[in-house]
Amino acid sequence: MDDIARKNMLYDFYGELLSDRQRLIYEDAVYNDCSLSELARDYDISRQGAHDLLKRCDKMLEEYESKLGLVEKFNVLRDLAKQIEDRTDDDEIRKLARKMIEVL
Amino acid sequence: MDDIARKNMLYDFYGELLSDRQRLIYEDAVYNDCSLSELARDYDISRQGAHDLLKRCDKMLEEYESKLGLVEKFNVLRDLAKQIEDRTDDDEIRKLARKMIEVL
Repeated sequence: MDDIARKNMLYDFYGELLSDRQRLIYEDAVYNDCSLSELARDYDISRQGAHDLLKRCDKMLEEYESKLGLVEKFNVLRDLAKQIEDRTDDDEIRKLARKMIEVL
Repeated sequence: MDDIARKNMLYDFYGELLSDRQRLIYEDAVYNDCSLSELARDYDISRQGAHDLLKRCDKMLEEYESKLGLVEKFNVLRDLAKQIEDRTDDDEIRKLARKMIEVL
């Protein structure tokens, strides 16, 4: 998984555990591709402040993953569900496997 | 799900996010069935202090669930995996479904 995909997954799982303000700024940086200068301007902080906040969010998200391991676990589950989906000839089972992949 | 089963599941998912001390005391209460008096004696706190700590842990675990919803999600996934396991005649698919249930 590349760095950006990993960041996205970590944020999908644990983003709710960041503060509202952290989420706002982090989303602008990661999803809306805002530069540090843009973040500094939009949130009335220094570029260094924006940089530090993003680093701190990354660290928090990685710490949650090291404690809960959900990204890892969900990747294993998704892989198993895909194997079932690919292997089966039974439409009902394919539907169940598809549903699992959607929930995951 | 009864109250104790729910507490166990919440703790399984989010226990790692409590502090070491909270975990020790919470496990003694929930898994080892220690009374408030026993906790008070073993951890050199008041009975009220033990009571408040347990309430606080319950609240934190419920808050994590309200933000991340993992217990809910995993119950849905486990149910789907069981349906696949029950329905299939294919040993390989049954093995994959069993593996999912173990991971979940």
